[in-house]
Amino acid sequence: MKKRVNVGKKILIANEEYALKNSQFLAKQKKLCLNMISSPGSGKTTILVRTISELKNKIKIGVIEGDIQTDIDAKRIKATKAPAVQIETGGSCHLSAAQVSGALNNLPVSDLDLIFIENVGNLICPTAFELGEWGKIAVLSVAEGDDKPAKYPAIFAKSKVLLINKIDLLSIGALVDFDIERVRADVRKLNKDIKILPVSAKTGQGMADWYDWLKEAVKIYKANN
Amino acid sequence: MKKRVNVGKKILIANEEYALKNSQFLAKQKKLCLNMISSPGSGKTTILVRTISELKNKIKIGVIEGDIQTDIDAKRIKATKAPAVQIETGGSCHLSAAQVSGALNNLPVSDLDLIFIENVGNLICPTAFELGEWGKIAVLSVAEGDDKPAKYPAIFAKSKVLLINKIDLLSIGALVDFDIERVRADVRKLNKDIKILPVSAKTGQGMADWYDWLKEAVKIYKANN
Repeated sequence: MKKRVNVGKKILIANEEYALKNSQFLAKQKKLCLNMISSPGSGKTTILVRTISELKNKIKIGVIEGDIQTDIDAKRIKATKAPAVQIETGGSCHLSAAQVSGALNNLPVSDLDLIFIENVGNLICPTAFELGEWGKIAVLSVAEGDDKPAKYPAIFAKSKVLLINKIDLLSIGALVDFDIERVRADVRKLNKDIKILPVSAKTGQGMADWYDWLKEAVKIYKANN
Repeated sequence: MKKRVNVGKKILIANEEYALKNSQFLAKQKKLCLNMISSPGSGKTTILVRTISELKNKIKIGVIEGDIQTDIDAKRIKATKAPAVQIETGGSCHLSAAQVSGALNNLPVSDLDLIFIENVGNLICPTAFELGEWGKIAVLSVAEGDDKPAKYPAIFAKSKVLLINKIDLLSIGALVDFDIERVRADVRKLNKDIKILPVSAKTGQGMADWYDWLKEAVKIYKANN
């Protein structure tokens, strides 16, 4: 088991080197990069598609799409006309910084203001691998239940923003039990600085606050780098 | 990278040895064991709680609960009076056969007919680690979207049963887009023998077919071991 730990550490260290390279590249180009992490089906791609469409005259967005298999999500992004690069991990449960480094070479970075990395759908493993992003965005859909921050704390502890998605389902309260205040309280215990935004990427409810946060983050990142 | 692969293989081989030991122990005791795998929040615990309650006079069920952190799920199982053993993985994204071996020692196995392992909420990593179970049960909630079998094929290819959960949400079609026929077609391409059962663990809809499958599986396993 000792060997396993050492090799695991080496993999993480090699990843950190690529992550540092990516973050230096992005800082030099003054491009904000956000790493979006959630369970499968929380709505990451739907959030991105709506965000790209709504902000198209204000922020130029590019996307790096991570998936185990298929380019279903990259096709959905490309339908918005935003540049997107697909990484098929072929079974791996998270993106690596080396993969992101390759993808950055295939994006028209100088034309963009903001680069989203949509990680593989997995609430656990992607949290341990820095990709060179400025910040992580966690997504939790109300259909997943309000006990998730307690059960999977790492991603909530590390993120700049938590998007609580699919709040349209709460209007049918009898079908979805989800206590937003329990989530707020559990997440605040893990991370006092996180911005918590309840949204519906489907109906648009609450999304204006997310767009405001993004516009501000792009502006501040440009000014500080 | 070569070293990583070799060590990875060694870990998998060590796991297989424990898995074999577990499956031999279970076969000798004539106890059916099922490994339940899904994304976080698909409804594994709710399915188990309802199944235990409904079958309490017919099948004696015990549960091994895997979680990154907290014993929230084990407490929910114990409230049904079924024996449950918690494994907190402390960050690891899947259960190992060695952990299950330890948990089996802490369950009253001889009193039981059926042992469920509720794996860590993760659609990817648990699929690669055999635990000694007779079969895997995949759970997919309709809120996660109908593209998941195409995007995360391994678990659907390997499972005996797919429970499509939260079908009560389909009654509000405008809010949840989910094409059950697309899922059936995609899953069948991966696995022609899988039993696909649409259910709602919340309302009970469709659950009778699941109970029938379980009763039959317990009977056949006992007869054949």
